[in-house]
Amino acid sequence: MPAAEIARRIALLQQRLQALDLNAALILQNADLYYFTGTIQDGVLLVPAEAPPLFFVRRSVSRAREEGRVAEIVPYRAYSEIPRLAEERGWRRLGRLGLELDVLPVSLFQRLQKAFPTAEMVDLSMEIRILRTRKSPWEVEAIRAAAVISERMVARLTAVAREGMTEVELAAEVEAEARRAGHQGQVRFRRFNQESFYGHLLAGPHGAVPAFLDSPTGGRGPYPAVGHGASFRPIRRGEPILFDLVGACHGYYADMTRTFVLGEPGPEVARAFTAVRTIWEAAGEALRSGLPAGGVFAAAVAAADETGYGEAFMRSGEGGRLGYVGHGVGLEIDELPFLARGFEMPLEEGMVVAVEPKLVLPEIGVIGLEDTFLIRPNGAEALTTVPRDLTVLTP
Amino acid sequence: MPAAEIARRIALLQQRLQALDLNAALILQNADLYYFTGTIQDGVLLVPAEAPPLFFVRRSVSRAREEGRVAEIVPYRAYSEIPRLAEERGWRRLGRLGLELDVLPVSLFQRLQKAFPTAEMVDLSMEIRILRTRKSPWEVEAIRAAAVISERMVARLTAVAREGMTEVELAAEVEAEARRAGHQGQVRFRRFNQESFYGHLLAGPHGAVPAFLDSPTGGRGPYPAVGHGASFRPIRRGEPILFDLVGACHGYYADMTRTFVLGEPGPEVARAFTAVRTIWEAAGEALRSGLPAGGVFAAAVAAADETGYGEAFMRSGEGGRLGYVGHGVGLEIDELPFLARGFEMPLEEGMVVAVEPKLVLPEIGVIGLEDTFLIRPNGAEALTTVPRDLTVLTP
Repeated sequence: MPAAEIARRIALLQQRLQALDLNAALILQNADLYYFTGTIQDGVLLVPAEAPPLFFVRRSVSRAREEGRVAEIVPYRAYSEIPRLAEERGWRRLGRLGLELDVLPVSLFQRLQKAFPTAEMVDLSMEIRILRTRKSPWEVEAIRAAAVISERMVARLTAVAREGMTEVELAAEVEAEARRAGHQGQVRFRRFNQESFYGHLLAGPHGAVPAFLDSPTGGRGPYPAVGHGASFRPIRRGEPILFDLVGACHGYYADMTRTFVLGEPGPEVARAFTAVRTIWEAAGEALRSGLPAGGVFAAAVAAADETGYGEAFMRSGEGGRLGYVGHGVGLEIDELPFLARGFEMPLEEGMVVAVEPKLVLPEIGVIGLEDTFLIRPNGAEALTTVPRDLTVLTP
Repeated sequence: MPAAEIARRIALLQQRLQALDLNAALILQNADLYYFTGTIQDGVLLVPAEAPPLFFVRRSVSRAREEGRVAEIVPYRAYSEIPRLAEERGWRRLGRLGLELDVLPVSLFQRLQKAFPTAEMVDLSMEIRILRTRKSPWEVEAIRAAAVISERMVARLTAVAREGMTEVELAAEVEAEARRAGHQGQVRFRRFNQESFYGHLLAGPHGAVPAFLDSPTGGRGPYPAVGHGASFRPIRRGEPILFDLVGACHGYYADMTRTFVLGEPGPEVARAFTAVRTIWEAAGEALRSGLPAGGVFAAAVAAADETGYGEAFMRSGEGGRLGYVGHGVGLEIDELPFLARGFEMPLEEGMVVAVEPKLVLPEIGVIGLEDTFLIRPNGAEALTTVPRDLTVLTP
């Protein structure tokens, strides 16, 4: 991670701290630590509003020094030492602190309150999430590198998919290809209890099985203790194979969905794919700097209704329709902005969002098309570039 | 999951609620939800101290009904509806509620406080974690099934490891084998910010690189945004290959470490392996029902000192020694009890713990041996059964 990236991010955070009349931010969560330091260590990043940051590190101090792009690394053992260690380095103002209250567990937060007994602690999470929405050119390159891994995954699926393979067998091949390329495997979510492991590879009606995830697809998973994703069900000829796997590089993701069929697709699959492509195009037209993120959802819904697939569009397993058609993508897969009903945040140049129209046909499966886009001055550029066809494979 | 499992667990939890003078528990976290319902859905499990549980489910209600072993599933949209929905079902006492404060994020907890404005909310997490330490025969069978996956992973490593492969290439092969067998991939931790993806496959000095994880091994990972685990470094002849990967089945884990070498091990590797096996045996002797969990650590330290490897034993990358040699294993990989310095909790029949002595030799690598044990009336049974040799592979 270039030091200039970190310096710019810290400066932007400090502007926000000053505007909010906060003395400092305390940052602990892995994705945020990486964003503001260039490394993930067991520690606490203290960013004063008007002084250089201090990175308090328990483990590993040596790696924090080697990989981190924050000049001052301060070893510590317990949170209670941090105020004194900070004061020794000239940082005394403890009145109002901003923290990641959306992700910090209550017990950990209570320990921090004890360590900073006189401080007022306020939620800084929305500020951090908004700050992270606009990607730098360096971040966009990381997402492009992740998209190259998505391409390799698709090439592997195309080469090995055969009738009668189970979903987990096919997933194993595709995931191994990603792993050889350095994919990190685990996909980070910000929201509590959300879990993912590369993403979803689901075939036929199984793709339409709902799960606890806040996602248009679920799947049975290997057993209820996992509860989503690929299962032991064999893949059959003619049914849609939904590839909704996440490419990853340098912690950044590329979210992409493609639909495959072994042998000739049934007429319903081909018709639905034509519709989903139309919806994808309509949504893409709404990806314009200055327009509200929720407008992408509205455009997609209108197009879905026009194609006659309004009922199937983003259909929830519970009946009714999910209220979004996409989300921001970066160091977490559920970043802002949400391309969701009524979401007013305007799209801005530099934001990266995944647009994922999906048609859920309970007897047939899920037919989807998803790309990760960079918002540019005059529209949006797809960072995922695998051909957007319904791909017919030899069974 | 058999319904009788769930009924027994709920009854034990209710005993604790009564003893603590709590009116009910509110359970939200994935691993705990699975433990107490048999399914993972987006919802809130309410367990009154003296009435049958109610499982409030947002998504997926149909899967909660199908997989869940709690009789009453109540659909809801917002936390604020729960008190009224519960009251309609005869549950009125809202005075004192127990919650998982070790894992619930602050913002989510604040939303629950708003939904139950008159309730006193106390931390129930330690009670839940203690309750989960003693495994039923059904749980032990799940861990044995996970251990079979560990065996398949070792067989695959033995078949494909070659000089010059990168760590991620070898990991890809071994992980794919586990995946085909239905491994869930992601390994759940209870502690904040801990992450793992199958576990660690590390070779040579790279194994001794420390990371943020609370683990004796770290590794570089593919890049700093991951910060631990397998890297792009090629595996060399004669260096120790540390297999510390986790088998998984039905959400339960089997934690096992074996050490391999391509070609003849250097004399230092062979000597260290003999020592680690001696330490493993000494630790195993201390695995007795009624003895304190911390005694296993003390026994391992004494044996390590005796073999002359005291300094290398559980050596932290920061200098000094980690204060543990093992941990409980179940639906999370960092369960109680900790086999840690001064940890007084007595071992009990039915507990399942991983014992993982590791010798960290910075120039050479990590030499380790780890098994998952079930505490029985007269000692402990290893649930992981792959031969405990330093395995020499054809390079």
